[in-house]
Amino acid sequence: MASPGSGFWSFGGEDGNNESDNPGTAKAFCQVAQKFTGGISSKLCALLYGEGEKSGDLTNKDEMCPGDKGMASSYDKHAYSCEKGELNFSLLYSTDLLPAKNGEAETLRFLQEIIDILLQYIVKTFDRSTKVIDFHYPNELLQEYDWELSDQPQNLEGVLLNCKTALKYAIKTGHPRYFNQLSTGLDMVGLAADWLTSTANTNMFTYEIAPVFVLLEYVTLKKMREIIGWPGGNGDGIFSPGGAISNLYAMLIARFKMFPEVKEKGMAAIPRLIAFTSEHSHFSVKKGAAALGIGTDSVILIKCDERGKMIPSDLERRIIEVKQKGFVPFFVSATAGTTVYGAFDPLVAISDVCRKYKIWLHVDAAWGGGLLMSRKHRWKLNGVDRANSVTWNPHKMMGVPLQCSALLVREEGLMQNCNQMHASYLFQQDKHYDLSYDTGDKALQCGRHVDIFKLWLMWRAKGTTGFEVQIDKCLDLAEYLYNTIKNREGYEMVIEGKPQHTNVCFWYIPPSLRHMEDNEERMARLVKVAPVIKARMMEYGSTMVSYQPHGDKVNFFRMVISNPAASHQDIDFLIEEIERLGQDL
Amino acid sequence: MASPGSGFWSFGGEDGNNESDNPGTAKAFCQVAQKFTGGISSKLCALLYGEGEKSGDLTNKDEMCPGDKGMASSYDKHAYSCEKGELNFSLLYSTDLLPAKNGEAETLRFLQEIIDILLQYIVKTFDRSTKVIDFHYPNELLQEYDWELSDQPQNLEGVLLNCKTALKYAIKTGHPRYFNQLSTGLDMVGLAADWLTSTANTNMFTYEIAPVFVLLEYVTLKKMREIIGWPGGNGDGIFSPGGAISNLYAMLIARFKMFPEVKEKGMAAIPRLIAFTSEHSHFSVKKGAAALGIGTDSVILIKCDERGKMIPSDLERRIIEVKQKGFVPFFVSATAGTTVYGAFDPLVAISDVCRKYKIWLHVDAAWGGGLLMSRKHRWKLNGVDRANSVTWNPHKMMGVPLQCSALLVREEGLMQNCNQMHASYLFQQDKHYDLSYDTGDKALQCGRHVDIFKLWLMWRAKGTTGFEVQIDKCLDLAEYLYNTIKNREGYEMVIEGKPQHTNVCFWYIPPSLRHMEDNEERMARLVKVAPVIKARMMEYGSTMVSYQPHGDKVNFFRMVISNPAASHQDIDFLIEEIERLGQDL
Repeated sequence: MASPGSGFWSFGGEDGNNESDNPGTAKAFCQVAQKFTGGISSKLCALLYGEGEKSGDLTNKDEMCPGDKGMASSYDKHAYSCEKGELNFSLLYSTDLLPAKNGEAETLRFLQEIIDILLQYIVKTFDRSTKVIDFHYPNELLQEYDWELSDQPQNLEGVLLNCKTALKYAIKTGHPRYFNQLSTGLDMVGLAADWLTSTANTNMFTYEIAPVFVLLEYVTLKKMREIIGWPGGNGDGIFSPGGAISNLYAMLIARFKMFPEVKEKGMAAIPRLIAFTSEHSHFSVKKGAAALGIGTDSVILIKCDERGKMIPSDLERRIIEVKQKGFVPFFVSATAGTTVYGAFDPLVAISDVCRKYKIWLHVDAAWGGGLLMSRKHRWKLNGVDRANSVTWNPHKMMGVPLQCSALLVREEGLMQNCNQMHASYLFQQDKHYDLSYDTGDKALQCGRHVDIFKLWLMWRAKGTTGFEVQIDKCLDLAEYLYNTIKNREGYEMVIEGKPQHTNVCFWYIPPSLRHMEDNEERMARLVKVAPVIKARMMEYGSTMVSYQPHGDKVNFFRMVISNPAASHQDIDFLIEEIERLGQDL
Repeated sequence: MASPGSGFWSFGGEDGNNESDNPGTAKAFCQVAQKFTGGISSKLCALLYGEGEKSGDLTNKDEMCPGDKGMASSYDKHAYSCEKGELNFSLLYSTDLLPAKNGEAETLRFLQEIIDILLQYIVKTFDRSTKVIDFHYPNELLQEYDWELSDQPQNLEGVLLNCKTALKYAIKTGHPRYFNQLSTGLDMVGLAADWLTSTANTNMFTYEIAPVFVLLEYVTLKKMREIIGWPGGNGDGIFSPGGAISNLYAMLIARFKMFPEVKEKGMAAIPRLIAFTSEHSHFSVKKGAAALGIGTDSVILIKCDERGKMIPSDLERRIIEVKQKGFVPFFVSATAGTTVYGAFDPLVAISDVCRKYKIWLHVDAAWGGGLLMSRKHRWKLNGVDRANSVTWNPHKMMGVPLQCSALLVREEGLMQNCNQMHASYLFQQDKHYDLSYDTGDKALQCGRHVDIFKLWLMWRAKGTTGFEVQIDKCLDLAEYLYNTIKNREGYEMVIEGKPQHTNVCFWYIPPSLRHMEDNEERMARLVKVAPVIKARMMEYGSTMVSYQPHGDKVNFFRMVISNPAASHQDIDFLIEEIERLGQDL
């Protein structure tokens, strides 16, 4: 993959040649004038050309072609039909778009063209006759297209083609038969909000540059804390780039709460700290411990019962053991909705242990937090109100576009004290507004992406009841799947009993293995079944579901449903597809 | 700010009532049928209704109003004009949009309505007669609108209104007179790419679910490493959520490189580590040290010269001092483009010191990295190719939409070894494609937002030369500003000499202070000048520029130019506006 012309920028230090080969607006001007026949809406037309002139036709081509600026102005105001028109994008470049002088029309047509591409993709996403994925191997994709970056610009036709190509090979994550991850679905209001967020293109550090978004974060975090059950919705929180970072925050704050001197003096100045989480918990707890200088050896994995729930008596036993060694237990991360089994740790019993030994209780409800929105299912998180901190990812069960992860903290001010560095260039103390809205210094990040608007707007559009309906439906579908396969020939359930979350874990046993003894040979064959079926699913593009080994259990399918587009027929389809693709194995 | 109905979700644990009050599609159906007169493009129309039927009028209203599904189908196929039409959004809800059955038309019209709102905002953004900001104090915004989240859904008219309101009070960060942050501007191709990214709504952890984006990250990081000057573009890297996290990564990897056992055993098992950075460097170096358990006391701030550049001899002196105490110098973070002065540390001399003492050299080029794209200016980063790691934020000087920050690492594989946790549910080892493309395990995050597409698409659209032109222009404008004010009455420069980056730091001295002695009283008055002018700028909404104190220097303006929309007239405007708003002080 050679990069043409990268030699220009090879490191030298000499002053270079500053000439540009960029094509200008003028060059493309006449062509544009003659090919302007694509559509933007009448409102935009009015914005551009004035209300009364929007339906005028292209009346005077000759006048507009000299390309000088005086003409450009008359071109803007009078010359084009708004209802129909198509630009020749092969003659236009990004330099013809705003902020280019007189670039409004080209910009609006270009963006509308992009939107048409996106809207077509959206319609296809929900069409069951469309593939979930048009799978190509990495080397195929690399060879089939030219993805390289070069010195010279590409015209806008090329840019539009790049967009189409990117979407051609994208996974339709909103497809009713895409079940591969905990985050699936494509919410139309969430998407609209994310487009708006991109357009606003700002940063969360201060009220000064994100007034509305900062307020909405305040309103939404408070609402989430109310739903958790903290009195008056009081407390603190932040939207962070994903559940792993939210969990890392929790550990960081818990450490600071117990030993505030760690901020200045580091781990060397404090006793050895020990964190506890279940053997089924998310790997980010260990990842966080490694990053924070605690070390993965200081994360003790507590045993789970056969359903994947942490055993509180084992937690207490291990805490006592650690204390006897002279180490300091500082952090318990209970999981509300484990990644593979969808298990909910018994939070009340765990919080009793944490209170007894004065340990910070964090609840990683990245996956399960959504169930707090359901009156039918929220009992599964009973005790979450006793937590010191909670990770809750609306981008999972609530279907908010990626990313949207919240860390909620019961004690106000702790995050600020833990993380603040008082950068005077951002957090000036003599501003003219209430500085409590400059929330950036409590973050680990400096710049922080606006993740709030999509959640807030979806919440307005659905109401809490709307999220409830959506979540209850996904759980109903999981139960339907469980009921359908639990006694069906060719299926073995990984865990007994009705699913608590939407995770349904099972082996598909192909006919050739059904009457084999449960011995090593059978295991050696069973381990290959799920990967082959998955590979075939991807090659057909018909559906996608995840598989993995877990503990001593060989590869099994982990079905999860977080996509509101999924229906009973999609569950039926999945079962039939697994059988179709796996029956010969 | 009461939350109506939050009591429904107060924590109880009982099974709740699962009934929903959501309005269904049927209710709104007839109304929709009668009001369908708003516009989508002819391509989409063809997609929805078939090529030949797109201009058919609404012919048989009565037939379509029973609201039953059989009728819905004929409504979809035949009934509506595509060229004109407006839905009554006050009768529609998010549940009427896809994936709702027969929700295509409503969805396309709703999204088109959103797009029209966004396109209007975009056109206004570049219009100099529009305010940069319509400033309201937090309590005003909270009182003026209802931002609360409730149990019941809002109709789509309300949702559209929310979007308009959010944009009404947003800062126009692409406005030619918005200079407030290092990230300004609104690139049309970048924006289009970000809209596409939102629509694709996927996650970077595996090739499986983000094939194109993973490949583009590979291609782009390689290109960036080539431009840094690492042989063959070899090495490693990742796009992270912002420069602070990129810097944290660098420190994390440097620590692991020197003491790999830290991952398991934590800081307790290794000697005390010391990091070095200049007194003008970004606060994220200290923030990172606090988080990683190193502690801010172990970050030594090296002296700078009067232009804000780190003094290499002071670095060496402090390294020797630390070693004599028995501590381990492990990390030097040099800055290429400091936040306030825009200074470039002397990388060659610093790298000599780092090599001599075998210390990891990180270059924080979050702000200055863009200059690598300019043959005229890249000499300012001379020596960057000697770094072990580089932070480079394309969302700053290259104008890529937020967020887009890269960490580049010279040694391949180190990130993976440092961060991997082998989660078997994501990184199955028996997949059917080349697993080297499953890059997620080298990240600190689990889910990772797709930040690559906007950079890649902009690069294709501009070519390297296009970025060069854009960056050179911003630097020329900064020099123009410097030349205009350096000898102008009422201005004092904070540092001498022509700016190296686009940062121009200056005091505006109102007439009343111009002939005062340089004593405490003058200082006490000068300190208030910039905040008052800034507050007035925001209240008029005419422009925005940052100010801050720095070291022993009282509040001064820090002008930065990263917005390609800015022109000489905007610089002139800024100067006149400062004088207009500050002359009475």
